[in-house]
Amino acid sequence: MKLLEERILRDGKVKEGGILKVDAFLNHQMDIDLFEEMADELYRLYVTENVTKILTVEASGIGIACIVGQRFKCPVLFAKKTKTKNIDGAVYSAEVESFTHGTTYKVIVSKDYLLPSDRVLIIDDFLANGAALSGLAKIVNDAGATLVGAGIAIEKAFQPGGEMLRKKGIRIESLARIKSLREDGGIEFC
Amino acid sequence: MKLLEERILRDGKVKEGGILKVDAFLNHQMDIDLFEEMADELYRLYVTENVTKILTVEASGIGIACIVGQRFKCPVLFAKKTKTKNIDGAVYSAEVESFTHGTTYKVIVSKDYLLPSDRVLIIDDFLANGAALSGLAKIVNDAGATLVGAGIAIEKAFQPGGEMLRKKGIRIESLARIKSLREDGGIEFC
Repeated sequence: MKLLEERILRDGKVKEGGILKVDAFLNHQMDIDLFEEMADELYRLYVTENVTKILTVEASGIGIACIVGQRFKCPVLFAKKTKTKNIDGAVYSAEVESFTHGTTYKVIVSKDYLLPSDRVLIIDDFLANGAALSGLAKIVNDAGATLVGAGIAIEKAFQPGGEMLRKKGIRIESLARIKSLREDGGIEFC
Repeated sequence: MKLLEERILRDGKVKEGGILKVDAFLNHQMDIDLFEEMADELYRLYVTENVTKILTVEASGIGIACIVGQRFKCPVLFAKKTKTKNIDGAVYSAEVESFTHGTTYKVIVSKDYLLPSDRVLIIDDFLANGAALSGLAKIVNDAGATLVGAGIAIEKAFQPGGEMLRKKGIRIESLARIKSLREDGGIEFC
């Protein structure tokens, strides 16, 4: 998506260790006009899929997910992060390993809000190693719901998550796919 | 706001210790149609205030804040929760005591995105003891920006936050104000 790529080039900042900071418009300050354009594009891509529920994970996926939910006229569900080891039976849960922070956390979704009849579109701001998306896909699967695919704002295509999950048969549509982040601050798209 | 009160009566659940669970439509599964009605009402209340920025705190305020941001056609900024003690100089920060969890955390906002020229509307899902809202108001003040007020989905008027902050001169508009939560599950509005 040209508009998002241009915005990444203009306002994104490349930090050491392959980190791309986009907190000017995506995951701290949020540009809602941009989110509307992104949501329109994701709606166009998934409009035939009869989506009944948007699923994301707190915190930075929630904003985009809500604007996408407007388009599909369906509820938006966000998985909660928790460190609690003992989760009661009323939730679906998955372990997510954070490569950035070197920690593992659990994401949980109440069983009340994810039904076998649901056709679920997962929305997130970033796809890199695919840990969060794998966890959300597992939760959809555990609920017996149908995963129609994922809509991602920025995919770091030089990290393995996208390829790994596409190989498993999951449809992934990323609005900007980054091929490389150079140490001089350069950003190259696929 | 009648629509929200009716929804709380229909889908809200009263738990022990004055807890109101509204995760069917507000802070786990999110009803975006309802959020649009709430955003319309908050826009009506604050339309003359020339709002330039919406401020909320992760995670459950983000969804409502984004839909409100659409109405005001301005960026939405969410404060991040962190346990890091040493915060560098590039952020405004405030301590927030969580009465529910008995813990204290810090909320931070990058100095890049809150300017003295900003006219800020704070949005959150709940107001009870006022700790989060106080922290956000401090951050707006530290930035030298103007706080035009707060828009809250549900205020627990039997807890002291609302009165305490209104006495400080902060305009607070709550879409549903709860007078009491009874042990038998009854909910009474102001």
